[in-house]
Amino acid sequence: MSLTAPTPLAELENAAEFIARHIGPDSSDETQMLSVIGAASREALISALVPANIVRDAAMAIPDGTTEAKALAELKALAGKNQVLKSFIGQGYFGTITPGVILRNILENPAWYTAYTPYQAEISQGRMEALLNFQTMVTDLTGMAIANASMLDEATAAAEAMTLAMRMGKSKSKVFFVADDVLPQTLEVVQTRARPIGIEVVVGPAEQAADKDCFAALFQYPGVTGQVRVLKPLVDAIHARNGLVIVAADLLALTLLQAPAEFGADIACGNTQRFGMPMGAGGPHAAYLATQDALKRSLPGRLVGVSVDSHGAPAYRLALQTREQHIRREKATSNICTAQVLPAVIASMYAVYHGPEGLRRIARRVASFTAIFAAGLKLRGVDVVNAHAFDTLEIVTGPQTDAVLARAVSAHMNLRRASATTVSVSFDETTTRACVATLWGIFAPGQTPPTFDAFEQGIELRLPAELVRTSGFLAHPVFNTHHSETEMLRYIRRLSDKDLALDRSMIPLGSCTMKLNATSEMIPITWPEFAHVHPFAPADQLEGYKLLDEQLCKWLEQATGYAGISLQPNAGSQGEYAGLLVIKAWHESRGEGSRDVCLIPESAHGTNPASAQMVGMKVVVVKCTPAGEVDMADLEAKCIAHKDDLAAMMITYPSTYGVFEPGVKALCALVHQYGGRVYVDGANMNAMVGVAAPGQFGGDVSHLNLHKTFCIPHGGGGPGVGPVCVVEDLVPFLPAHRSGGLGADDTRRVGAVSAAPLGNAAVLPISWMYVRMMGAAGLKQATETAILNANYIAARLSGHYDIHFSGGVAGIKGGGVAHECILDLRPLKDSSGISAEDVAKRLIDYGFHAPTLSFPVAGTLMVEPTESEPLVELDRFCDAMIAIRAEIAKVEQGSWPREDNPLKNAPHTAQALLKAEWPHAYTREDAAYPVTALRLGKYWSPVGRVDNVYGDRNLFCSCVPMSDFAEAAEAEAAQA
Amino acid sequence: MSLTAPTPLAELENAAEFIARHIGPDSSDETQMLSVIGAASREALISALVPANIVRDAAMAIPDGTTEAKALAELKALAGKNQVLKSFIGQGYFGTITPGVILRNILENPAWYTAYTPYQAEISQGRMEALLNFQTMVTDLTGMAIANASMLDEATAAAEAMTLAMRMGKSKSKVFFVADDVLPQTLEVVQTRARPIGIEVVVGPAEQAADKDCFAALFQYPGVTGQVRVLKPLVDAIHARNGLVIVAADLLALTLLQAPAEFGADIACGNTQRFGMPMGAGGPHAAYLATQDALKRSLPGRLVGVSVDSHGAPAYRLALQTREQHIRREKATSNICTAQVLPAVIASMYAVYHGPEGLRRIARRVASFTAIFAAGLKLRGVDVVNAHAFDTLEIVTGPQTDAVLARAVSAHMNLRRASATTVSVSFDETTTRACVATLWGIFAPGQTPPTFDAFEQGIELRLPAELVRTSGFLAHPVFNTHHSETEMLRYIRRLSDKDLALDRSMIPLGSCTMKLNATSEMIPITWPEFAHVHPFAPADQLEGYKLLDEQLCKWLEQATGYAGISLQPNAGSQGEYAGLLVIKAWHESRGEGSRDVCLIPESAHGTNPASAQMVGMKVVVVKCTPAGEVDMADLEAKCIAHKDDLAAMMITYPSTYGVFEPGVKALCALVHQYGGRVYVDGANMNAMVGVAAPGQFGGDVSHLNLHKTFCIPHGGGGPGVGPVCVVEDLVPFLPAHRSGGLGADDTRRVGAVSAAPLGNAAVLPISWMYVRMMGAAGLKQATETAILNANYIAARLSGHYDIHFSGGVAGIKGGGVAHECILDLRPLKDSSGISAEDVAKRLIDYGFHAPTLSFPVAGTLMVEPTESEPLVELDRFCDAMIAIRAEIAKVEQGSWPREDNPLKNAPHTAQALLKAEWPHAYTREDAAYPVTALRLGKYWSPVGRVDNVYGDRNLFCSCVPMSDFAEAAEAEAAQA
Repeated sequence: MSLTAPTPLAELENAAEFIARHIGPDSSDETQMLSVIGAASREALISALVPANIVRDAAMAIPDGTTEAKALAELKALAGKNQVLKSFIGQGYFGTITPGVILRNILENPAWYTAYTPYQAEISQGRMEALLNFQTMVTDLTGMAIANASMLDEATAAAEAMTLAMRMGKSKSKVFFVADDVLPQTLEVVQTRARPIGIEVVVGPAEQAADKDCFAALFQYPGVTGQVRVLKPLVDAIHARNGLVIVAADLLALTLLQAPAEFGADIACGNTQRFGMPMGAGGPHAAYLATQDALKRSLPGRLVGVSVDSHGAPAYRLALQTREQHIRREKATSNICTAQVLPAVIASMYAVYHGPEGLRRIARRVASFTAIFAAGLKLRGVDVVNAHAFDTLEIVTGPQTDAVLARAVSAHMNLRRASATTVSVSFDETTTRACVATLWGIFAPGQTPPTFDAFEQGIELRLPAELVRTSGFLAHPVFNTHHSETEMLRYIRRLSDKDLALDRSMIPLGSCTMKLNATSEMIPITWPEFAHVHPFAPADQLEGYKLLDEQLCKWLEQATGYAGISLQPNAGSQGEYAGLLVIKAWHESRGEGSRDVCLIPESAHGTNPASAQMVGMKVVVVKCTPAGEVDMADLEAKCIAHKDDLAAMMITYPSTYGVFEPGVKALCALVHQYGGRVYVDGANMNAMVGVAAPGQFGGDVSHLNLHKTFCIPHGGGGPGVGPVCVVEDLVPFLPAHRSGGLGADDTRRVGAVSAAPLGNAAVLPISWMYVRMMGAAGLKQATETAILNANYIAARLSGHYDIHFSGGVAGIKGGGVAHECILDLRPLKDSSGISAEDVAKRLIDYGFHAPTLSFPVAGTLMVEPTESEPLVELDRFCDAMIAIRAEIAKVEQGSWPREDNPLKNAPHTAQALLKAEWPHAYTREDAAYPVTALRLGKYWSPVGRVDNVYGDRNLFCSCVPMSDFAEAAEAEAAQA
Repeated sequence: MSLTAPTPLAELENAAEFIARHIGPDSSDETQMLSVIGAASREALISALVPANIVRDAAMAIPDGTTEAKALAELKALAGKNQVLKSFIGQGYFGTITPGVILRNILENPAWYTAYTPYQAEISQGRMEALLNFQTMVTDLTGMAIANASMLDEATAAAEAMTLAMRMGKSKSKVFFVADDVLPQTLEVVQTRARPIGIEVVVGPAEQAADKDCFAALFQYPGVTGQVRVLKPLVDAIHARNGLVIVAADLLALTLLQAPAEFGADIACGNTQRFGMPMGAGGPHAAYLATQDALKRSLPGRLVGVSVDSHGAPAYRLALQTREQHIRREKATSNICTAQVLPAVIASMYAVYHGPEGLRRIARRVASFTAIFAAGLKLRGVDVVNAHAFDTLEIVTGPQTDAVLARAVSAHMNLRRASATTVSVSFDETTTRACVATLWGIFAPGQTPPTFDAFEQGIELRLPAELVRTSGFLAHPVFNTHHSETEMLRYIRRLSDKDLALDRSMIPLGSCTMKLNATSEMIPITWPEFAHVHPFAPADQLEGYKLLDEQLCKWLEQATGYAGISLQPNAGSQGEYAGLLVIKAWHESRGEGSRDVCLIPESAHGTNPASAQMVGMKVVVVKCTPAGEVDMADLEAKCIAHKDDLAAMMITYPSTYGVFEPGVKALCALVHQYGGRVYVDGANMNAMVGVAAPGQFGGDVSHLNLHKTFCIPHGGGGPGVGPVCVVEDLVPFLPAHRSGGLGADDTRRVGAVSAAPLGNAAVLPISWMYVRMMGAAGLKQATETAILNANYIAARLSGHYDIHFSGGVAGIKGGGVAHECILDLRPLKDSSGISAEDVAKRLIDYGFHAPTLSFPVAGTLMVEPTESEPLVELDRFCDAMIAIRAEIAKVEQGSWPREDNPLKNAPHTAQALLKAEWPHAYTREDAAYPVTALRLGKYWSPVGRVDNVYGDRNLFCSCVPMSDFAEAAEAEAAQA
C-alpha cells in the first residue's frame, strides 16, 4: 500500500475497535489455534460443533458495534433522561455518601469487582475478611448470633426469613403475619414467594399480631411511615404461641435503637444500602439476614467462617456449604447462589471507615434533623402522625397532599405519598439544614420558616426512651483503627493483594464465564444520573432507566430468540425462580394448575431442582447417557408417566458437561408434546449468542446471567442480574411490581420477585454498553472465540488428561467441546492419590484460580476460558496443567511420596518455604518455581490449604481476635 | 451523656471531618506520642521548637474547613464556570481519548499516582519499565538515539534543547534562530530563558535559517499553522556553519512523517499530550527531549536506564545521575528535578495499548479528515494557505475572520485566529465526520456542505511525498502484545505490583513530604470541566480556572505571608527559577542590574545553585556552623564583600537539616541591609503553614511545592506545581504569558516560564480541595502534627541512632527537630562497614521505601513522616529501624561477616531465598522475616540490589529485549 494512499473512512473510524479489546486472541493467534485444533477456520469449527438444526438462520437484529467513546456518549445522553432530584422518599432507599477512598479503590477497582465467589478459599482471603467484617457488623448491630455474607435485597431476605421460620418454627400454622407498615415492596415479594408453597400472608396493623395464630410475623423497625414501635410485647405474645418473629431493621437506626435480638426477635433482616451504596434505582445493594443461635445452621445464603490453614493459622472460607442448593438440590429450601458481595464489601468498609462513633454521629445527625423538622412543623401548626421517629415523619397534608408533593418537585425534592392525606419525609446523611428549611416552606407555605437558632445546641431525639440503645457495637479493632484515609487505603489494598482476580490472571471457571469487564462498561454505573435516583421516584424522572430497559430487552430478545423479558430478577437463581413461576401461572391460566412435575436431568446444576421446589413443583430426575447427554428414552418414559402432571423440563444448553447435544430440538418437541414447557438455563448462553437461540429451537423460558454472558462483573460473588426471557404466549405472565407501578392491574402476571422494579438496575448499563460496543457481529465473534478457546485448551491438554464428555468430533483434536471442557482427574487419583482438589490447590502455586472443581462431575475440573483470554494466557494455563501432569507422574512413579509432594502440600506460602528445615522430597524451588516464567513474577498464597472440616465443626463467623493472627505468626517465628 | 440528649448541630454536621481523615494520629495517639517525646502538649512542643520571633501572630484568613461532599459540590459549581467547547485550536494541545483501562488503573489509581521518584530503584521497577517504554516510544518515533523520561512541557523542553545546543555545539555564535511558525508559547519561554544568559533569539521565516549564523535553530514540524515543511536543506545549511538543529515534532504526525533524525536534526522535543492525556487547560503533560548519540551524556532531565541486579538479571534504575543538578550544583546547566512521570506513563501506555498499527490508524484518520476538510473547502471556494498538512489547515477568512470565529463558538467549537485574515483548524482523534460537516458550514455559510460520498474510500493524504515515513517504529513486543483490555489491565497491574507507593507503606522521604493524596482531592481533576478545556480557549470560557487561580492564590498568600503569587511554574525548580528572575528584574528596574551575586549556604539543595546559574547569577557559598546553621559571621563577611553586587540569598526554612534556625529573621535583615533580597525555598513549608510565614519574617520570594505541602501526588516523579510567591514590591515582576493573554503589555514582568499560562492547571484543584477541606485550623494542625510525628521518630530512635543536627531542646527526647530528622549512620559505617545505602536497601526487606539517602549530609538518612502517617506506621518504621540497628550490632560483634549479612545482601528476592544452597551466615528467615509482623504480609522486592555503575558504563535506555529476562530466569532455574 502506498503510504499516502487513501484508506477507507470506515477502516479509520474503526467502529469495531472494542471487539478487539474484548476478545483475547487476534487473527494471527486464531490461525495458530485453529491449526492446533485441526480446524480450517473458526466457521468450520463452529459448524462441526453446533447441531445444524439449531443454528440460527438470521443474524441478530442488533445495531453494529460502535466505539467506546461513542457508546459512552450515547449512554450519557440516555442517562440524562433520568432526573436526579433530592430524595426524601425513604421506603428502604436513602441518600448516602460513598467515601471517596472506598468508591475509587473498591467499587471502581478491578481487583475487587472482577473477583469470583470465594470458593477457592486460599486466593480469597481478602474479600472474605471484608465479608466477615460485614457479618460482624450485622450481628453487632442486630444483636443476633450469626449473619450471612449478604442477601439479594431486603424483600427477598424477608421472604427467605419467612421460609426459614416456616421450616424451623414449632408452630403448625400456615399463616405469616405481616405488619402493615412493612415496606410495600417487601410485602409484594413475600406474597409472591408465599403463594406457591401454601403460606397464607395476613396483613394488618402491627398490634394485631398479638392475637394472630401465625408461624411467624414480620415487623419493620422503624416502620415505613416512621413510627418507632416497642415490639417486645408483640414478640412475647407471638413466642407464646410458638411463632417466630422477624424484624426488618434499619442498621443506621440500630446504632441508636435497641437491637432486635435484645427484645427477643428470632430473625433480623434488612438492607445495608445506606452504608455507602448509591440508591441506583433500587440496587445492587447488600441486604442482610441474621438469626439467633438456634437457627444458625439453617441460615440460607453464603456464610464466611473462620477455620485454620495447614499451618494452624487462622484462615477464612465459606462455611456450611453442605446446606446450600448446589449440594442439597431439590432438598434445598432456598435457591440462592449469588450474594451481593461487592455492595456488602462496601457497606462493611463504610462501617470500618466511620467506626462506631462515626456511625452513631451520622445516625444522631439524621435523628436530630428529623426532630428539628418536626419541631419546626409544630411551630407552624403542621401535624405529624408518628410520635416517635428516627429518620421519617408522616405529615398530615389532607387535601393539600398533591400540592405539597408538587411543591416539593418544584424545589427539586421527592417526598413520599404515605396515604391519600399524608406525606412522609425521610432524612439521611446527606440531609442538610438547607433541606430542612426548604421543607418547612413546602409544608407551611407563605409562613416564615423557623430558624435554626433554637436548635444549634441540638434537640432531644424523638426515640422512645425504652428503646434507646445502651449496648455497644463494633468493638473489634478493625472498626476502630482504619479511620484516616491513609490507613483505610492501605487496609483496602492489603486485602485486595491477598486475592486473585481477573486483573492478575485467568479465572477459568466452567459455567461461570469470567470474561472481561471492560472499563467503559463500568464507568457509567457511578454516573449520578444512574447512581443517585430512587427506585420509586415519579416515573417521569426515570425515563432514562425506562429506555435502557426497553433497549436492553430488545437486544437480549434478539440474542435469545424470546419475545419478552423482565430484567427484575437480581440473580440467576431469581430469574430461574421467576421463569418457573411463569410456567406455573400459564398452566393455572389454562386450568391445569395441577401440573406440577418438573423434569431435570441428573447433570443439572443444583439450583434447578431447588428452584423447582420453591415453586411447589415435584422434581423428577431424567437420566443421562454415558456420553453425558440426556437419555432420550428415559425422558420419553418419564414424559409418558407424567403426561397429566408434567409442568416443565429444565435443561442447560450447551449442557453442564459443556457439550452441544444434537438432540435438543427433539427434546423440546417431546416435552411440548406431553404438555410441558421447556426451561433452558441460560448459564451457558456464552456458547450460543449469535449462533443459536433457545427461544428459536424450542425453549419456552430462559434466564440469562448478565454477570456471565453480558459482562457484569462477578464482584467477588455478586451482584448478579438474572433476566427472565419467555416466548410470546408467556409474556403476559412476566413479573409485576405494584410498588414500582408495573402491571399492578394485570392479574395474570406473577408478582414481584425483587424489591425494586428493575432489580439491580444500576448495573444494567454494563450490559447495555457491552452489547452496544460489540454489535451483532462482535457478539457472535465472541461466542465463536469462546468456543475456539475452549477447544484449544482441550486440544493442548488432550494428550495429558482425559477430556470428559468431549464430542468426539472427527478431526477436532480434543474431541470437540462447546465453550468449556471437563478434565477428568479420577484416573489420576487412582494412579497417584492426587485428587482434583490437589490439582486445584497446586494451580495456586502456578498463579491461577482453579477451574470449577467437581462440578458437574466429582473428581473433575471444568475449564471455561471465555473469549477474553488471550492466547498467551491460555498457553500459560496449559503449560501449568501439563507441568502439573508431569508432577503427578513423579508421584505415580514413586519419585515423590504419595502424601508428601508439591500437590498435596499446595498451596505453598512463602513462610512455609523459607523455614530453615526442609524435610520434603522435593525442593523449595520445585514448590515455588515449577515453571521458569514464575520467576518473573509470582502470586504468593497468603495461607496454606484451608481446613474446611475444622471450620464447620468449630463454626465461627465473626471477626477474628487480632491476637489470633499475631499468635500464629509468633508461633511460626518461634520455630525459626 | 444521656443517649437521647441533644448534641450540638455543629458537632453532628462535623465540618471538620476531613482533618481527621488527613491527619494520621488521633488525639489519643497524640497523647501517647507526646509522652514519649516529653512534651506537655502539641502547642508546648511547637513553642519549644519554633523561634518565638517568627511565630505568626494571627491565624490565616482561610475559610473554615468543610466536609468532603460540600467541598466537592463547591468545586463542581466553580468548574461549571468553565465552558467545554470542542477544540480545533491545536497550537500544541489536542482532544484525545484516554483509554478507560488507563484512566482508571493509572491516572485514578493510587498505586501509580502516590509513588515517588524512582531513586530507590528496587522498589520502582514497574514505573521505570513504563518510563523505559516512554523513552523507547520517543526514540523510535523521532529516530533519535536517546530520550529522557519526560520534560515539563514542550516550551521548557525547547528551552533546554537551546541551552544544551549552546554548550555542546561547536558554533561561537550567540544567536538562536526560531522559525516563525514555532508554537508562540514555546517562543515566549525560549525568550525568557535566553535573556539572562546572553543568547540572542532571532525569529523569522524558517527559510531564513539557511543564511543565519546561529549556534542552533528551532523548527516546528509540522508548523503551528499546519505547514509540513521539508527541513533537510535547512538542516544541511545550518550544519555547514556548525549550528545544531532542534525540531519540535508532533509524535502522532511522526507515525506518518519522516523522523527528525532521518533528515539530520540533532535534537527533537515536543509534547506527548495527545497520547491520552486530557488537555487540562495546559497541563500536566509529558514533554519529551531526545538527541542524537553525540549529545546523550549531556541530555538534561531524568533518564531511566537498564543495568543488572546483584543476581545478574536485567534491572532498571535512573541513569547518569551524576550529570544532574543535585550533584553538579552551580555547575549544572539545568535545574530540572521533577519530570512528568504520571503523564509520561500514560502516554507510554497509550502507545502500548494502540501499538504501531493503532497509532498509525489514528494518525491516518486525522490526516484523512484534514484532507477531506480541505477538499470540501476547495469545492466551496474557500482557500487554504498550506499546501501540505497533517492535522491543521490555515484557512483564508479575510474580513470574515471574526464572523467565522463567532459562528464556530455558536456551534460550540473553538478555532484559532492564525492571523488577522486567516483562521486555523486542527483535527485530532476525537474529530468526526459530523465535526467536518459543521466546519464546512461555518467556513462556507449558506452553501450546501459537501457530502462524504466521494470520500468513503478515503483520500490521498496532504503530506509531501518525500516526507512520507518508510521506517518502522515500536517493534518491541511490549507495543505489540497488550492490545486487548484484559492484557493491558494485567500489564498495568503487574507493573504497579512491583512498586511500593503510599498505598502500601510510608515513604518517609526527608524534604519530599509524601503525605496523603486524598481521593476527594483527586476526583475533580478528571471532571470534563477541568480536563477538557484548551489553555488558549477564549478567556470567557475559562472563568472557572480563573476563579480557582484567584481563590487558591489568596489562600496560599495567607499560608505564606506573601502579597502575590503566580501558579504558572510547573515544578519547584521552575518556581525557583521564576523567583530569581523576579529578583533580577527588580534590581534591573532600579538600575542595579549589575547585582549578580547569589549567596547560598553550603547545606542548600543542589537546585538552588543550578537555578542561580540559569539566571546568570554568580553563586557564593556561605558556610554553616557545626550545628548545621548558617554561619552568621561568614554571612556578614560575604555580604560586606559583595555589598555592591549582592543580588540575593537563597535559604531553605526550616533548613535542609530539618531545624528551625533561630536566627532566620536576623539573617533576612542582614541580607536586606546589603541590598539583597531573600529567597526562601519552600521545600519545607510543611513545617510552617499556619505556624510561621516566610513572607512575614523576612523572605522576599519563595516557591511552594504544591506536590509536597499541598497534596498534589508525586505521580512517581511528577507532575509538580511550583508557584512563585513574592512580597508587595515584587508583585509587578511576576511572570507574564502573552499567548495566554496575561500581562502582555507590562514590560516589568518576567516572561513566560511555562508553556501554559497556569502551568499544570489541571492538578490545581487538588490543592484547592485540600485547603478548602482543612481550613485554617486544619492546616495548622497538619503542620503541628508533621512536627510531632518527626519528633516522635527522633525520640524513639534517639537511643539507637545519632539524630544529626537535632536542636538540643531541653526536655525533648531526640533533641527537638522540625518536621524531619536526620539519622547519622557514619559512625556505624566505621564500626560495622554497613553504609547508609545498606540500611536503605535493608528497609525494603522490611517493606519500606527508604528515607532520603545521603542528602543533605552524605552517610545519613533523612526521615520525614508527614502528618498523614498514623502512629501504627510510625511504630512499624521505628521497630524496623531498631531491628536493623540490632542487625548492625551483630555485624559489629562479628556474629555476621562484614561482607555477608542481611544488610549487605539486601534487598532479598524470594528467588534468591529459595535456592537449595544457602551459604550465608544468617538464615533465610532472618532475611525475610526479621520482625514477626512481616509474616502477616510482606512486600517482595522484584530484583536484588541494582548495580548503578554497570548501568552507567553500559548505557542502555530503551526497552530490554524480552529474551534477556527469560534468559536470566532460565539461568536462575538452571542453578536450581
